[in-house]
Amino acid sequence: MNKMKKLTVIKIGGKLLDNEAAWQAAMDDFDKIPGAKILVHGGGKLASDLSRKLGIEPEMVEGRRITDSAALEVATMVYAGLLNKKLVSYLQSRGTNAMGFSGADGNLILSDKRSVGEIDFGWVGDVKTINTTLLISLLEQNVTPVFCAITHDGQGQLLNTNADTIASVLSAGMADKYQTTLKFCFEKNGVLLDPLDDKSVIEKLSKTAYLQQKENGVISAGMIPKIDNALAAKQAMVYQVMICGTNGIQSSKGTEICL
Amino acid sequence: MNKMKKLTVIKIGGKLLDNEAAWQAAMDDFDKIPGAKILVHGGGKLASDLSRKLGIEPEMVEGRRITDSAALEVATMVYAGLLNKKLVSYLQSRGTNAMGFSGADGNLILSDKRSVGEIDFGWVGDVKTINTTLLISLLEQNVTPVFCAITHDGQGQLLNTNADTIASVLSAGMADKYQTTLKFCFEKNGVLLDPLDDKSVIEKLSKTAYLQQKENGVISAGMIPKIDNALAAKQAMVYQVMICGTNGIQSSKGTEICL
Repeated sequence: MNKMKKLTVIKIGGKLLDNEAAWQAAMDDFDKIPGAKILVHGGGKLASDLSRKLGIEPEMVEGRRITDSAALEVATMVYAGLLNKKLVSYLQSRGTNAMGFSGADGNLILSDKRSVGEIDFGWVGDVKTINTTLLISLLEQNVTPVFCAITHDGQGQLLNTNADTIASVLSAGMADKYQTTLKFCFEKNGVLLDPLDDKSVIEKLSKTAYLQQKENGVISAGMIPKIDNALAAKQAMVYQVMICGTNGIQSSKGTEICL
Repeated sequence: MNKMKKLTVIKIGGKLLDNEAAWQAAMDDFDKIPGAKILVHGGGKLASDLSRKLGIEPEMVEGRRITDSAALEVATMVYAGLLNKKLVSYLQSRGTNAMGFSGADGNLILSDKRSVGEIDFGWVGDVKTINTTLLISLLEQNVTPVFCAITHDGQGQLLNTNADTIASVLSAGMADKYQTTLKFCFEKNGVLLDPLDDKSVIEKLSKTAYLQQKENGVISAGMIPKIDNALAAKQAMVYQVMICGTNGIQSSKGTEICL
C-alpha cells in the first residue's frame, strides 16, 4: 500500500496577528515545515480597529457580534486584503511559495449563509464543501495555500467564516488523501488546567476528559469552540490534532486532542 | 505546426469599478469569453473614498500621488481585498472559475520598487518578471486569474503598481505561448478624435499616427500612458491590442493599436 504523503495545516489567529514581530517569527517556523502545508489565519483586532476608525459600531445582539454589510466589507478588506497579502509576501521572502485565498477563489470553500434562528448573525457562512481537487493540485505544484476566513455562497455573496472551523473542515477534507496534522496555534501554549499558569498545559485531552473538564468549569468558555473544532477534525480521521502556542509549530509541544 | 491556443486579457478600471451594475454587466460579458482568460482590475475611487474616511490625506508631490505606508495599506485592503474578492465571487456565481491574485501570490508578478529620482513615489513597483510557468499551469486547469494592482519585491514588501502596466506585461509574457488579445476597457468607447464626442472612435491607431496626434494635442494627457502600455504589448508580439469600452469585451468595437 502507498504510504500517504504528509500535510500540515497550521491555523494562526488571536493576539499573534496583532504583533508583527510575533507573526513573522511564527512564519519563519512555518516556512521550515517540510512537505505540503496550508496556513489558515484569523483576523486579530485589526478589523475592529479599522471599524472604529471608520466610525462603524460593531452590531451586537445578546452579546454576539453580527456581520452586517459594513462589517463584512471591513472583514474582507482586512482579512483577504491586508493580512493575507502581508503573510503571503512575507512567506514568499522566506522561500515558501505561498498563495493567498478566500473561499471564493477557485471556489475553494463554499459556505451556506447561517440560517436565521433566534439571532440573525448576518453575513456569516458555515462551511459546506471544499474543492479538494483544486487544493490537491495546488499542493502538488508546491504551492502553499494561505486562507483567510472569508468564504462565499457560490451566488456572489461573500461570507464571514470562523477561521478555526475552516482549518478543521479543510483538514477533514484532506484526511483521506494526506496523513494530516492540524495545529491550532494561539497565544497560550495549549489547553491549560489553570488559565493563569502557562505551564499547566494538558498533554493529551480526550473527548471524555474534555467533557468532564467542561462540566467542571476548568476549561474556559473561549476554549470550547476551539476544542470542538479540534474534535470534529479528529473524528473526521485527521491523523493528529494539536492546540498549541507558536512554540508548537516546529515541535510537538502543546495539547494533543484524542477521541 | 501547432496552432496556438487563444488567451484574452481584459483590463477594467476607472469609473467602471465605482458602479456595481456597470462592472457586473461587464463581468457578464467577460464570463462569456471562451477559452483561457485573465482579468486585471484597477481601483476606481474606492481607495480615495476609504482614505478620506480614515482621515488620510493623499500625499502629492508636484501633482503626482505618492504611495506612503498608509496609502499602501489602503490600496492593499481595497484592491486585493474588497474589489478583488467581490469580482471573484461574482464571476464564480456566473460559472467562471475565477481566482484572485496579487503579484505576491505564487510570486506571480515580481516588481522593483521604483527608484527615487526627482520624485520619491514611495511604495510603487515597476514590474520585473512574470511567473509564466505557474500562470500557464493555472490556465490549463481552467482557472481564470483575476489580478489586482498590488505586486511585491520578493523581499516581503508589497508595492502599488499600475494596472495598465500589469495587463501589458502579463500579455507580453504570454505572447509566445498563446495567441493573446489584450483589451483595455474603460469608460470611453476607445481612443477618441474628439474627447467630447463618444462616436469619434479611432478604429486603428498606428504608432506613427499616435505620435502625430500626441504632438498635435489631439490625444489627451490621460490617454498617453494607456496607449504607451498598449504599444509596449504590441511591440512584445501580443497578437491584438484594443482600447475600448465595455461594449468591446464581446465584440471588436474600439480602437485597435498597431505598430
